[in-house]
Amino acid sequence: MTSFPLPPGSTIGILGGGQLGRMLAMAAARIGFDVAILTPEVDAPASRVAARTIVAAYDDREALAALADVAQVITFEFENVPARALEILAELGARTAPNARALAVAQDRVDEKTFLNGAGIPTVAFRAIDDLEALREALKDLGAPLLLKTRRGGYDGKGQVWVQRMEEAEAALAALGYRPAIAEAPADFRREVALIAARGRDGEIAVYPLTESHHENGILRRASAPATASARVIAEAERIAATMLAALDYVGVIGVEMFERDDGHLLVNEFAPRVHNTGHWTLDGCEVDQFEQHIRAIAGWPLGPTAPLIHVEMTNLLGDEVDRWPKLAREPETRIWLYGKREAKPGRKMGHVNRLRPLDG
Amino acid sequence: MTSFPLPPGSTIGILGGGQLGRMLAMAAARIGFDVAILTPEVDAPASRVAARTIVAAYDDREALAALADVAQVITFEFENVPARALEILAELGARTAPNARALAVAQDRVDEKTFLNGAGIPTVAFRAIDDLEALREALKDLGAPLLLKTRRGGYDGKGQVWVQRMEEAEAALAALGYRPAIAEAPADFRREVALIAARGRDGEIAVYPLTESHHENGILRRASAPATASARVIAEAERIAATMLAALDYVGVIGVEMFERDDGHLLVNEFAPRVHNTGHWTLDGCEVDQFEQHIRAIAGWPLGPTAPLIHVEMTNLLGDEVDRWPKLAREPETRIWLYGKREAKPGRKMGHVNRLRPLDG
Repeated sequence: MTSFPLPPGSTIGILGGGQLGRMLAMAAARIGFDVAILTPEVDAPASRVAARTIVAAYDDREALAALADVAQVITFEFENVPARALEILAELGARTAPNARALAVAQDRVDEKTFLNGAGIPTVAFRAIDDLEALREALKDLGAPLLLKTRRGGYDGKGQVWVQRMEEAEAALAALGYRPAIAEAPADFRREVALIAARGRDGEIAVYPLTESHHENGILRRASAPATASARVIAEAERIAATMLAALDYVGVIGVEMFERDDGHLLVNEFAPRVHNTGHWTLDGCEVDQFEQHIRAIAGWPLGPTAPLIHVEMTNLLGDEVDRWPKLAREPETRIWLYGKREAKPGRKMGHVNRLRPLDG
Repeated sequence: MTSFPLPPGSTIGILGGGQLGRMLAMAAARIGFDVAILTPEVDAPASRVAARTIVAAYDDREALAALADVAQVITFEFENVPARALEILAELGARTAPNARALAVAQDRVDEKTFLNGAGIPTVAFRAIDDLEALREALKDLGAPLLLKTRRGGYDGKGQVWVQRMEEAEAALAALGYRPAIAEAPADFRREVALIAARGRDGEIAVYPLTESHHENGILRRASAPATASARVIAEAERIAATMLAALDYVGVIGVEMFERDDGHLLVNEFAPRVHNTGHWTLDGCEVDQFEQHIRAIAGWPLGPTAPLIHVEMTNLLGDEVDRWPKLAREPETRIWLYGKREAKPGRKMGHVNRLRPLDG
């Protein structure tokens, strides 16, 4: 039987072997935990810093049983883990965090926005789209253009298409392979911000400073924190995160991406039930970064401080931008984080840099 | 053929699997390197964060060949690696850093002090002790008491004994098993300080702020940095480190332990040809810590900045002090580093904490 807080020497299980799992594994090791990774990928980035790796499909019952055997708590590094994996782990009596509901809600864009609105948190207007008729209705109700996205899957701008006119409706559905979709009204916003927050097993909540984020082609390009923002906006962002965490009975770190409208109010764009790219600045900007915070939360430890020590501008290294490492290594203000991926495909997140400068005033 | 700087994706070999290897491995992974550990220990702390471990004796030729096969550069995490291991690696054509001479000098306390004095760096008075006659001579020349230490091996206060009077000479030699020894005059000092420095493949030198260190029973208890010290003392420490690094044609991080005498001048007590416990504060106190600095140096990367971001007091967690983790985890100013050792033997270094506070005005 797992009892919390988990003592050092315990094993943390992680579903997924990418860069988020890698940085989670390093954070766990820092505070004395062993890490076991389950990933379908041989030689995954996270495996190379983990005590143990099980290479198998996420819903492979035997593999999940082997993971549950060694790990006292199991988490995931990305939200497209099949729900079936968490069901099997629950059947096996394993402890997982965040919980299956948070994962399920985050996996479906319609459920996500429905949950948010139900908790009193504003989003853009949206409609569930199951067929051409529904999309036409949505275009009539909400007007054009609409952003059509698959309900499930898709990330970094994949699986979405703009619908500018009624005549494009059919083609848009075809472009998404007629999968169940969501149509979203455009967000009228002046900038994108994000908040990384955490909730412990005792319900304690910790919130990092607001981050300003910049996307290009649907992929996060830069994020800087602490963002310049009014006390009212910061309070609103923190209230939103706290509401979500409590409503989901959440344990762990969550990443909340928001639009700041011209009137200064916030809309939630989406949330990730995991550590998040907009929180990578915390690796060098805070005493306890988002990765250690997540490990602390799921292990039942007290949450760590979230105050900023320094201002950080994080820039993703996409594809062959990682080849700039010799120049980056010469920049005194630049901390380099590379993920150990073997192949630099275009747009692939190969690493990031955190550029440090003293906190404003 | 290895050519420098090593690109990310290369493999760093490390002889030794303890906490220093563990923190070196994590630093290497952060900047995109894989790590291969060679250690005689199964389930070593460093193995659990490394891509690969070879379990074998340090002078096992086949094991060293396997390491040299995968690693583009090989380093060590402790100075008692048998010289034979580096000889075999040289025969195999492997690149190692620091070089064999630095290791050899550091392994023998008489050679070490002879080297230092030869480079114009003061130490306490000493004599090589091969027999009772030599020890008696030393007591006559240098006076009592003398600290008798084995020339080789011994760390954390092991392998040393005070000789207070001529009549204790025989017993002291017996206590050290009649091994070749060194007799050292006591250092008349007001405090111990240490300096972590690095030298790159291009001869560039980087020096961290001076650390004040406190030992108990021969084991480092606390270290805080940046230490309060006069500009003259800091300049003297930096000159000493730079002289040593250049004289040894050194590549990597070195730890230099010094006595600050009442007159404000420095004596070198000893140096470690590796990352050092008195530099653990850099993990949270500097943009680039001593572990990443060592990896950068041996990989031929430019050295990173060494300016302090914050004041750190490092305290070792010895033996069952590690059981204080629940209390330590609640301290907001405290960063916890645990080494994943399975058994908390008395005096064993199980982890450390870095307590942060703003830099002094």
